[in-house]
Amino acid sequence: MRANANVSKLPSSYIREILKAATAKDCISLAGGLPSEKLLPFEHIAQSLRETADDINILKQILQYGPTDGYPPLLTYLRTTFKLGTDTRLLMTNGSQQGIDLVARGYLDCGDTVVMESPSYLGALQAFSLTPAEIKSIEQNADGPDLNQLEDQFKTGNCRIFYAVPDFHNPSGCCWSLATRQRVGELCQDYHVLLVEDAPYRELRFRGETLPMASTFCPENAIVLQSFSKTTAPGLRLGMLSGPAQLVAPLERIKQAADLHSNLPGQRLLLQLMDSDIYAQHHARLIQAYATQCESLCVLLDNKLGDIGQFERVDGGMFIWFQLHHLDGDRLAQIALKHGVAVVPGSVFCSDNNERIQRALRLNFSHPSEQDMETAIARLRASALEAMQNQ
Amino acid sequence: MRANANVSKLPSSYIREILKAATAKDCISLAGGLPSEKLLPFEHIAQSLRETADDINILKQILQYGPTDGYPPLLTYLRTTFKLGTDTRLLMTNGSQQGIDLVARGYLDCGDTVVMESPSYLGALQAFSLTPAEIKSIEQNADGPDLNQLEDQFKTGNCRIFYAVPDFHNPSGCCWSLATRQRVGELCQDYHVLLVEDAPYRELRFRGETLPMASTFCPENAIVLQSFSKTTAPGLRLGMLSGPAQLVAPLERIKQAADLHSNLPGQRLLLQLMDSDIYAQHHARLIQAYATQCESLCVLLDNKLGDIGQFERVDGGMFIWFQLHHLDGDRLAQIALKHGVAVVPGSVFCSDNNERIQRALRLNFSHPSEQDMETAIARLRASALEAMQNQ
Repeated sequence: MRANANVSKLPSSYIREILKAATAKDCISLAGGLPSEKLLPFEHIAQSLRETADDINILKQILQYGPTDGYPPLLTYLRTTFKLGTDTRLLMTNGSQQGIDLVARGYLDCGDTVVMESPSYLGALQAFSLTPAEIKSIEQNADGPDLNQLEDQFKTGNCRIFYAVPDFHNPSGCCWSLATRQRVGELCQDYHVLLVEDAPYRELRFRGETLPMASTFCPENAIVLQSFSKTTAPGLRLGMLSGPAQLVAPLERIKQAADLHSNLPGQRLLLQLMDSDIYAQHHARLIQAYATQCESLCVLLDNKLGDIGQFERVDGGMFIWFQLHHLDGDRLAQIALKHGVAVVPGSVFCSDNNERIQRALRLNFSHPSEQDMETAIARLRASALEAMQNQ
Repeated sequence: MRANANVSKLPSSYIREILKAATAKDCISLAGGLPSEKLLPFEHIAQSLRETADDINILKQILQYGPTDGYPPLLTYLRTTFKLGTDTRLLMTNGSQQGIDLVARGYLDCGDTVVMESPSYLGALQAFSLTPAEIKSIEQNADGPDLNQLEDQFKTGNCRIFYAVPDFHNPSGCCWSLATRQRVGELCQDYHVLLVEDAPYRELRFRGETLPMASTFCPENAIVLQSFSKTTAPGLRLGMLSGPAQLVAPLERIKQAADLHSNLPGQRLLLQLMDSDIYAQHHARLIQAYATQCESLCVLLDNKLGDIGQFERVDGGMFIWFQLHHLDGDRLAQIALKHGVAVVPGSVFCSDNNERIQRALRLNFSHPSEQDMETAIARLRASALEAMQNQ
């Protein structure tokens, strides 16, 4: 008995193999997109769990079946915090990953295309691969997507969705300029394309001014996905999908068929974590630490790998995109694993066979300690030298 | 911007309207499939939350990203408890509802049919409606599906999945005989049809002998879905999917694209609840209470509604299927709402327009108190009399 053909279309599980190898003893991982363990709000979480344990009325609420859109007190809190109008509908999802999947299931049909910047977020490539739609890649420049290529795709008339990560893109780290955000909004409006703005890293800006979301320039044509994995804890698997009621309503019906609703004890815990004075301190501490860790990685790359490749500094997020001068990313990543360091090669984020992207690595700075980072980059240098020798 | 056509194919949200109306003050609900609130293991849950709060190593495990298949200590526990062999693969799901959805996405394609007994579980009708496959209904007799109709469907060569709830079917309450289980297994094996055995009520048997699962008669061709919503707490949204590795592996890949993995604090809590001496006591108390509540409902139906319809007693589960002599289920359910009692009409569980099924109600006995049940049945009698007068 064989699974449907679209399941075998799913992009390579190479990244999972790398992540598995990265758990080996002595292997240092710059591969994942994990928050730093030492920065998880343990005390606050422990205290929240104890408070819940002591409150029978809360327990009664969160142990029964609940509404599909989410835990009502959490929805109220999020609506206020994110200043969402009454015409905006919310849907709690199992991480922003489920948001991508719901949008893909609700709005991509046979003959449609979905446009993404290249390199692309792997989880979105996976979710879109399960639909009958075709994925089209456009180039990403320093300030966002190539607007001519984007409009060319829109002009075909087949494009249903433009999937975008305007703030600190995974894997490239790119942050769109204001002008690009405005123009993308106009184009989506003009060509009736649904902008799916995935914003998991938006709250991880550690430098510079926060820019308006691209979706604010085409509010009637946009769905926003937010994640609480990066700012609270990924194990909760909670995200938020929002947009105009008529766009979100069909997704709520799919969510109901998919799993009825997201887990309630987790939604309660999220509310406790966010609706508290401690949260602002936690958040400030988090982005300060990431700023420091990011700078450490950048200095190491400048000092140790300047002859191997180049990169742009980022103002937030979790990743540095390291463009190799000559080496192939897959080959270097493989050799690096032997040397005890895990990195993700560009090919993983590539639905076309773009040679420039394949000549790159994604390096994570949120998870490793400073000392591990130093060791990792030394090992990466040794790996690069080995790769060059055998070229 | 319109959602895909299959979203509008989703069965009516009538049941959600009923459940919403049922929350009105003074309305008594026999409509939902909720466990009794007074039987939820509150103390045990509170104690488990406190233990987790005190254990930093556990917190570290459950707050980070985790493996797609599930929380490793829970998987080990479930593998032992359910005596699963090494060739069986497990996947934790967001309730058994996500299990149905994953199977539907993985194994139903254009031109396929999925066979279900009629009346059918609404959540399965919803998940299957989102696929390009066609849903075919066969009749359900007292001891299970009509085997001739089943084989006729299999003979067409298009049937990919037979979806079945052999233990205390929702909504009918039907429990398949041993002979039926054996024969269904043989047929699935002979015709290479995937048996999806959904078993959320299997652990809710309060009388009689537990029969082998139907899937044990075609183990190579079967996927089993189990739910922890009925025995622990539905708010956790946790279920388990199991089957041969080659059948489950593609579903794990879809799960990864759908939401990476199920929430970890919930999986930890489930392990604490189940892997404890208290669990057996909780379970015994639960089924004893449901036995009593079921008998109370049956006595009320005998005494108060014997002239309106008839029913079969059940040995487990949460529902009585009340077959009306003359009245239409939709009409009676509507009048009943006015009288302050919510019930679900048979039409909701019906993908064809079966007249007999439309002339029925699903009545829940797990959630209402004895006193509410008595009031509810008195109101239902008044509603039935009103319906007859205006016929």
